[in-house]
Amino acid sequence: MSVKHVGVALLGLGVVGGGTYEILRDKREMILKNDDVDVEIKAVLDRNEARIAELGIDKSIVARDIDEIVNNPDIQIVAEFFGGVEPARNFLLKALYAGKSIVTANKEMFSKCWQELEQAAEAGGGGLYFEASCVGGVPVIRALTDSMQANRITSLKGIVNGTTNYILTRMSDEGVDYASCLKEAQRLGYAEANPSADVDGFDSAYKNSILSSLAYRRRVPVDKIIREGISDISVKDIAYGKELGYTIKLLAISGQRDGRIEARVHPAFLPNSHPLAFVKGSFNALFLSGDSVDDVMFYGRGAGALPTGSAIVSDIVFCARNEEHRRYPFENIKDVDENAFLNDFSTMYYVRFDVKTGDGTLSKIAGVLSKNKISIKSVLQKADDELVLITHEVRESVMRKALCEAEQLDGVDKVAALIRVEE
Amino acid sequence: MSVKHVGVALLGLGVVGGGTYEILRDKREMILKNDDVDVEIKAVLDRNEARIAELGIDKSIVARDIDEIVNNPDIQIVAEFFGGVEPARNFLLKALYAGKSIVTANKEMFSKCWQELEQAAEAGGGGLYFEASCVGGVPVIRALTDSMQANRITSLKGIVNGTTNYILTRMSDEGVDYASCLKEAQRLGYAEANPSADVDGFDSAYKNSILSSLAYRRRVPVDKIIREGISDISVKDIAYGKELGYTIKLLAISGQRDGRIEARVHPAFLPNSHPLAFVKGSFNALFLSGDSVDDVMFYGRGAGALPTGSAIVSDIVFCARNEEHRRYPFENIKDVDENAFLNDFSTMYYVRFDVKTGDGTLSKIAGVLSKNKISIKSVLQKADDELVLITHEVRESVMRKALCEAEQLDGVDKVAALIRVEE
Repeated sequence: MSVKHVGVALLGLGVVGGGTYEILRDKREMILKNDDVDVEIKAVLDRNEARIAELGIDKSIVARDIDEIVNNPDIQIVAEFFGGVEPARNFLLKALYAGKSIVTANKEMFSKCWQELEQAAEAGGGGLYFEASCVGGVPVIRALTDSMQANRITSLKGIVNGTTNYILTRMSDEGVDYASCLKEAQRLGYAEANPSADVDGFDSAYKNSILSSLAYRRRVPVDKIIREGISDISVKDIAYGKELGYTIKLLAISGQRDGRIEARVHPAFLPNSHPLAFVKGSFNALFLSGDSVDDVMFYGRGAGALPTGSAIVSDIVFCARNEEHRRYPFENIKDVDENAFLNDFSTMYYVRFDVKTGDGTLSKIAGVLSKNKISIKSVLQKADDELVLITHEVRESVMRKALCEAEQLDGVDKVAALIRVEE
Repeated sequence: MSVKHVGVALLGLGVVGGGTYEILRDKREMILKNDDVDVEIKAVLDRNEARIAELGIDKSIVARDIDEIVNNPDIQIVAEFFGGVEPARNFLLKALYAGKSIVTANKEMFSKCWQELEQAAEAGGGGLYFEASCVGGVPVIRALTDSMQANRITSLKGIVNGTTNYILTRMSDEGVDYASCLKEAQRLGYAEANPSADVDGFDSAYKNSILSSLAYRRRVPVDKIIREGISDISVKDIAYGKELGYTIKLLAISGQRDGRIEARVHPAFLPNSHPLAFVKGSFNALFLSGDSVDDVMFYGRGAGALPTGSAIVSDIVFCARNEEHRRYPFENIKDVDENAFLNDFSTMYYVRFDVKTGDGTLSKIAGVLSKNKISIKSVLQKADDELVLITHEVRESVMRKALCEAEQLDGVDKVAALIRVEE
């Protein structure tokens, strides 16, 4: 192959920006030798002078502003590490309109602004590369765009947030409560001071939007994704689930059925035998089912300077070698109307009832469920004032209605926990 | 993207060839719509008229011989499904010299003949695509070539043969002996009448050669791979390993240390917590470690008409869109001299001794091991005439020497089983 020379600008030198800088600095020769791509960092944009000094960056490549980068004809690729919507969106739109390709790990900005980015890329002729936006260094975007062409993807399940998986794994393995695990995650730098983006499932929803849009070739906007976080999950329910053969995970789930798409993010019990049940701590994984390939899973680190930097550098090299730039998920992905999304979905349920007495109450609850055509898969009773059930698959709306009825029963105090069970 | 039209010939209509035919027939519209590639099957080559009728193939596209395909200017891609070295090698060389690109699932031919194929591809200008040769529909080749550019891969472990994983999983889960499991695998069509290619590790060695060459960017010939099969594995050792926290797998292993490569295929115990330990039945997986990405794993079906067909079709579409064709693993991969390979390697060991009596014998064995600087990690004694040990890491040559000495000990009958333990 002929050698390609490419000039890159790095916007932001935080954890991943710094990791990417170090990889490109230390491995320029290796990448040239292996892939015939010579990547030169032509500019960095960051106001933190201490960080620039720490990384040993020559001041001559520190840009004053985005315009200096946009106007530099020696820069073909702009890699962004700010996170959040602004100024990332504004800077990347400028770069795209100026004909540059962009590489980003910014799932929030990407999932919220792709229409604009696509228009700008089309106008400028550049490409959109975002492998690093989902599952860190694991090439799930490349797999969806370049390896699943023979498939109708039928469903997708992912553990796509390391913070929540770390918390749930500790709660599960060590019986430590949610608040303590969150504090520990914050101490270790796995969770932000304001942890909402992770623990409330926003981060997983952004990624679900990107992954599902690629999987089904239909745009799945973030606001169509049903979203619940993990803050209500108790150690008690995790322990009961374990006894029944299940592991708790925060899942990004989507599926395509009868031409309609359902997408959601919520904690769920998985059977211990499911490959995703073994994904522990801060590791991430994406599990896909296609009508040709059957089940496949991609596993690895979902975050971190070098794993995410690995995906960024891979995109830079891939972009440099591309003749035709990628504008996924936009190209050939149509907007879909409201009716394309299922708001109601079917799954199995774990329910814990607080009861006045177990005696006779189970049969009354079973009666209500049966009346609503909900069948019980297993029952666990560990104390007199508690009943745990797992149901077979049922529509969520039917389940909620039945539980309202059950709460009216004599002998039932309340539904103390409701957790979906995926198989 | 502009629409690309591509004419394809299918050589062989067996399981995977037939599956590929069906995918291309049934999904031509979908692939055109999603990927702007219009794939037309212009010719098939197979002498089995019943099979051609079964697949409903129009006789007008049945070629008489390879030359008819090679001389057809409407065919740009030749996909091969014969398996084995000849006539696949000869036919594909003809196609490559005629300027066509090739797509193949044939790991034996590919790992044995790549130098020739590369020369022919370079002469003709076509590309070599072989995603389907390893781990079926799971895009491990694409991951190694297009997603790990920021990494020095340090090691690789794979369960790359479904037949042996099916057998070992059944032996492990159900306690059924090797011979019965093999028979059952043959009955189900998972194993050939002559099962040697699978159970003796040849198939895994071909795949290890391809994967390791891509991982380290250095050619790892099949004959440099240390190879042992699974036929000596007993249900007893699997059960003892389980008690000690290990799962048995046939692994393709390689690593790069101090500039030297070691590559091997043999059964090994993995800790139950290792992600590969959960890969059951006929599923396959590849576990990689890179210096940027850390650990990643790719999991899915390693064989079958549609999963492997999925990889073939993905290669066809990818090839059709490529401006610069791939000649991996050849491009930028140098042949390496004999010294580049380690014949001796270090690992942990599970050893089962037949002993005359346990009393005092353990301490004698421990003495011999200690003298050879081998330390013991755990001991299991289930019967008077048996001793099971797991050692810490030690070089294989040292281990074998120590075991010879131990067999001379009064009280020791023989080393009844020796299984490597990987962590």
